[in-house]
Amino acid sequence: MNKTIVLNSRPIGKPKLSDFKFKDGTLPELSDGEILLRSVYVSVDPYLRGRMNDVKSYIPPFELHKPITSGIVAEVVTSKNQGFSEGDFVLGMLAWKEQQVSNGEGLLKVDPEKAPLSAYLGVLGMTGLTAYLGLTEIGKPKKGETLVVSGAAGAVGSIVGQIGKILGLYVVGIAGTDEKVDLLKTDFGFDEAINYNTTDNMVEALATTCPDGIDVYFDNVGGTISDAVLFNINKHARMIICGAISVYNKTSLPKSVSVQPFLIRKSALMQGFIIFDYEDKYPEAMTQLTAWLNEGKLNYTETIRHGIEKTPQAFIDLFDGKNKGKMVVKI
Amino acid sequence: MNKTIVLNSRPIGKPKLSDFKFKDGTLPELSDGEILLRSVYVSVDPYLRGRMNDVKSYIPPFELHKPITSGIVAEVVTSKNQGFSEGDFVLGMLAWKEQQVSNGEGLLKVDPEKAPLSAYLGVLGMTGLTAYLGLTEIGKPKKGETLVVSGAAGAVGSIVGQIGKILGLYVVGIAGTDEKVDLLKTDFGFDEAINYNTTDNMVEALATTCPDGIDVYFDNVGGTISDAVLFNINKHARMIICGAISVYNKTSLPKSVSVQPFLIRKSALMQGFIIFDYEDKYPEAMTQLTAWLNEGKLNYTETIRHGIEKTPQAFIDLFDGKNKGKMVVKI
Repeated sequence: MNKTIVLNSRPIGKPKLSDFKFKDGTLPELSDGEILLRSVYVSVDPYLRGRMNDVKSYIPPFELHKPITSGIVAEVVTSKNQGFSEGDFVLGMLAWKEQQVSNGEGLLKVDPEKAPLSAYLGVLGMTGLTAYLGLTEIGKPKKGETLVVSGAAGAVGSIVGQIGKILGLYVVGIAGTDEKVDLLKTDFGFDEAINYNTTDNMVEALATTCPDGIDVYFDNVGGTISDAVLFNINKHARMIICGAISVYNKTSLPKSVSVQPFLIRKSALMQGFIIFDYEDKYPEAMTQLTAWLNEGKLNYTETIRHGIEKTPQAFIDLFDGKNKGKMVVKI
Repeated sequence: MNKTIVLNSRPIGKPKLSDFKFKDGTLPELSDGEILLRSVYVSVDPYLRGRMNDVKSYIPPFELHKPITSGIVAEVVTSKNQGFSEGDFVLGMLAWKEQQVSNGEGLLKVDPEKAPLSAYLGVLGMTGLTAYLGLTEIGKPKKGETLVVSGAAGAVGSIVGQIGKILGLYVVGIAGTDEKVDLLKTDFGFDEAINYNTTDNMVEALATTCPDGIDVYFDNVGGTISDAVLFNINKHARMIICGAISVYNKTSLPKSVSVQPFLIRKSALMQGFIIFDYEDKYPEAMTQLTAWLNEGKLNYTETIRHGIEKTPQAFIDLFDGKNKGKMVVKI
């Protein structure tokens, strides 16, 4: 009995539980060079929604009736590969299975002594790398500038804001509940935070909280929130387009305020950011993030669900903002 | 009698003749250090429309009942300034007047022997600099890539396409009449051109004419044409947002396809371009443009209207695409 989660149908709009299907499988015998892995933590991320559509993007779409894959921390149960020993923990893009066989390719060993295992999916994983490299490589922030972060209480956003503070920026977060707004100001050190769900006029709210205008915008959401940001950008503003969770589930092509006139008026830049483009910078970024974490400069929050059968619902809940910080499933 | 054109009212939507007013003035006596200028060629440009709104942009709005200014080539009639002699020709941001007094600041001497005077408003002026620096500084084109230019038969667009060919790109232009499409292919050496007014499906038309996708997009128009480009961009595409003539006259905030999901999927860049940000690169660009012009590698087309009283209509006609290449008024 080895539970596996496959894509049962391509979601139309917001994913439903019926878009996923559980299968039971057996495991093949290990061949030489292979290892048997037991999943410990499974990462659920908004970007996976894109892979569920049959659309060419920066990574190929998931295949129907095949297992879904995402970042997973796993333990080595048995090894016939010299590079891995029983009891090792590894991080990799793996299948949503309780156990699976791997040849070890693309797996990174992680040390449970240096950080909690789940952190390797978050602040020390793709999430942290995305926050750090997106902000520094595209945002190129200068001390004293104003940074606005949307989806600020999410996995990436909460780290972006903290890095902004470390780098000497004035940081404003946008989130969807008062509880998240409080969290941003207390736990994550944001200077200001706005609850977009209780704010009638986001353009004005941003103008008020950003009296010097917006120099850098780290965008995780797209849609009307990002439209409002445009009205407040400064000359030479940089907008890191990292996610667009507000439109991932749209079934018709979303429309927004035309960005082009704003970009012209402000000589501003908008650039799509995908962490996979920056692989050569991972080591430098990991070193920096680990240092800040050990110095106590980076807090992180996790929302942990328990049991592989909770994985689809955990993923779906991302689109209702039910996570605070990184959402992971403990298997 | 010295005719002057002032902004009589801020246009709502497309400018009307009544938004402009002619005044007759007298000229003051020249003080020491001053020169008297007679306008020879007046440049009319789409970007002036933005300055007619009372909106902060990269340059301040025109004041009501004050003269409009734009690029003008003028002749020195009288000089009390050691730097200028009678008969010199100068280029500067000057008022829409038959004659005016200047202290010489910000004026550049131009040589009618080296190029026709009107060229200093076009291929060797802001137009050529915009084409060259926008394409190279933001577009960073590599030999063999595909460049698409909107407003391709306009002043900037027709030069962008030719520079693209000089740099070894595959170049596709978008324009609004069959005559312009022919001009692009015959006079300006574009590989392909599309008439957007007779094309039902621009997304498909671009896919057909750009079989390898679009790497660089030089955007002069915005709106639905630019929306269609998004569907055809390649990974790491660069979009130079230089103009948005299709929306300059809109009285309500224009909406477009949300660009953010496209930017994310393709790690693509969109950046607003304003020539004034690149002043340090003018000399290098001028040298290059002059060399290409003298080598016969750059063609240019002008639409010349005659008489200062034709200036407002010439400006208005830009928004109906009545110009081919650079529109200037001979005074």
